[in-house]
Amino acid sequence: MSDPRLVAVLGGGQLGRMLALAGIPLGLRFRFLDPSPVAAAGAAGELLTAELGDLEAVDALIADAGVVTYEWEGVPVESARRVEATHTLLPASTALEITQDRAFEKELCHRLGIGTPRFAVVDDRAALDAAVETIGVPAILKSRRGGYDGKGQAVLVSHDDLDRVWADVGGVPAVLEAVVPFTRELSVLAVRGRDGATASWPLVENHHRGGILRTSLAPAPGLTPELQDRADSIATRILDALDYVGVLAVELFDVEGELLVNELAPRVHNSGHWTIEGAETSQFENHLRAILGWPLGSTDAVALCAMVNCIGALPDHVSALAVPNTHLHSYGKEPRPGRKVGHLTVTATSPDELDTHLTRLQGLPGTVDTAP
Amino acid sequence: MSDPRLVAVLGGGQLGRMLALAGIPLGLRFRFLDPSPVAAAGAAGELLTAELGDLEAVDALIADAGVVTYEWEGVPVESARRVEATHTLLPASTALEITQDRAFEKELCHRLGIGTPRFAVVDDRAALDAAVETIGVPAILKSRRGGYDGKGQAVLVSHDDLDRVWADVGGVPAVLEAVVPFTRELSVLAVRGRDGATASWPLVENHHRGGILRTSLAPAPGLTPELQDRADSIATRILDALDYVGVLAVELFDVEGELLVNELAPRVHNSGHWTIEGAETSQFENHLRAILGWPLGSTDAVALCAMVNCIGALPDHVSALAVPNTHLHSYGKEPRPGRKVGHLTVTATSPDELDTHLTRLQGLPGTVDTAP
Repeated sequence: MSDPRLVAVLGGGQLGRMLALAGIPLGLRFRFLDPSPVAAAGAAGELLTAELGDLEAVDALIADAGVVTYEWEGVPVESARRVEATHTLLPASTALEITQDRAFEKELCHRLGIGTPRFAVVDDRAALDAAVETIGVPAILKSRRGGYDGKGQAVLVSHDDLDRVWADVGGVPAVLEAVVPFTRELSVLAVRGRDGATASWPLVENHHRGGILRTSLAPAPGLTPELQDRADSIATRILDALDYVGVLAVELFDVEGELLVNELAPRVHNSGHWTIEGAETSQFENHLRAILGWPLGSTDAVALCAMVNCIGALPDHVSALAVPNTHLHSYGKEPRPGRKVGHLTVTATSPDELDTHLTRLQGLPGTVDTAP
Repeated sequence: MSDPRLVAVLGGGQLGRMLALAGIPLGLRFRFLDPSPVAAAGAAGELLTAELGDLEAVDALIADAGVVTYEWEGVPVESARRVEATHTLLPASTALEITQDRAFEKELCHRLGIGTPRFAVVDDRAALDAAVETIGVPAILKSRRGGYDGKGQAVLVSHDDLDRVWADVGGVPAVLEAVVPFTRELSVLAVRGRDGATASWPLVENHHRGGILRTSLAPAPGLTPELQDRADSIATRILDALDYVGVLAVELFDVEGELLVNELAPRVHNSGHWTIEGAETSQFENHLRAILGWPLGSTDAVALCAMVNCIGALPDHVSALAVPNTHLHSYGKEPRPGRKVGHLTVTATSPDELDTHLTRLQGLPGTVDTAP
């Protein structure tokens, strides 16, 4: 007997935790599969402990679930296909296949007429020589698979660097990308329902350090309807092409108003955490509405927001909550250098007010650069 | 070893559930004590099943808790005192003692110079004769203890009704109250921190049917700063007098701008549910901030809201979520006639928009009068 209100989730980190916190009010319950027995999502649902590639554990996860989703793009495609043999997996396994491989991702954009940095597929050391002739320097070599938060990447500044960067990414199939003189990094979060309806939240401006997202400003400062339209068009073409259901994150480079796709994430996303307080409907609630076949909620912003990741440590509650309009989200994780253990969202009605609050927050533990 | 992040809660209904949903992001975990093994709060924390008067169960509840609170004003005072022997109970047991007895509650207001409907304490049948001479008719006889949602009350319209109303309230100690020609029913939710700081949310206008709250409008239509000041002053005097820590609800009669206290609830309150979406900080989060000694968050409204209780049934998700800006809160309870099983909050930026949405919601199952 399956329970239509039981959502099974592959992965049980903070994204799963926030999905469950959004879903419990909707009358849903959650079961997570995660290799860690202390995974963050365990605070808000049942937690099964096993590798995501463990097919018996996958069977146990989904047994009586009404719908199955994932909160990590690294879910083994074999596990996803196992789910699809008997259950509804949303987004479908095709979204994993494509986003797990930078070459597939970029080729998809190319087919859809969506701009990306110029790139060449580099499947062996010899191909790197050819690629650098086409792409030029500076360029970035990125492993096709498995990289995240800046890992599996190496910058190529001269033709003498080829052996070093090839070794740096581990001598694995890769993609060589032109370095783009971008003005800023943006992202658009979009959602598509089972009926094909789509919606996107206002563009977000993202600030990284050490390859890790530190701060998101939402809506992105200086956002124009034209820029939003460009982002919406990109997101919608990808969503429709994949017959995608759920939330998709598209990381973008803003090159003087032209938007190039950097990376896709087939899930709720760190740069969408501001939507909990800052949008009429959060990314977490709309992901659930989408996969359950319910109407999507409004993605309108209701405040100006800054989202600050807490890396390596959480600020103490008294200091953080003393800053006006600050909302603390702890993931219940043990602090460790470089680890995302929570985030703070501060809301405001004017950019100046936002700046004032943000300045006070940015001195607190966890909000300064503690990453290696 | 006590865990400073473990909050123990006497009672495990929907108020406890929403406290936990607000507290998990703050890094807290929850343990509830409730007589029902399927109590609503079990979805978001550990649930111990026993009567709240079971002192051994109370000991198990609080064993390693950092702080203890309650989500029901009917908690036996003996249990509250048991907690206080070894732990911090907030609000303290004195708040229970006073609010469990209508006479004590009204006498407190009287001592503080806060208006209430005229009243007389009626501890036996003979006292009722004297009381009706003082108060006149029409009047309402209310049992001193144990009444809620309109139970334990009887309306007295003539001097011939004395025996009937005395029987109707069960022949127990009571209070006879003058019927007040109020314009509308309001409530103010207020919070006081461990440091004595206080804050209140904007006044709410409440609509009851069959003695049960159906709809709250927040902020109350036509709210003036003067009216809010009057409500804040009432709430603050009560909070300070009781050295209260946490959220307090004060139900009020608006008699052409004069505010009279109807009833107090020493807890988060149904008429404050709109604060989840509609205020910068929800009643649930601020209750937790208060009892943990953290700074209070802003109580400013961020939207116009209508909160509609779902009585006896939940509307189906598709119909409810199709209404713009509608947020569904299921309590995960079995539907039963007259039972609060969830609520809907709809947000808007203008009263007209709010009206439009509300009209669509009010035809849905659970939002019409299904109570006996």
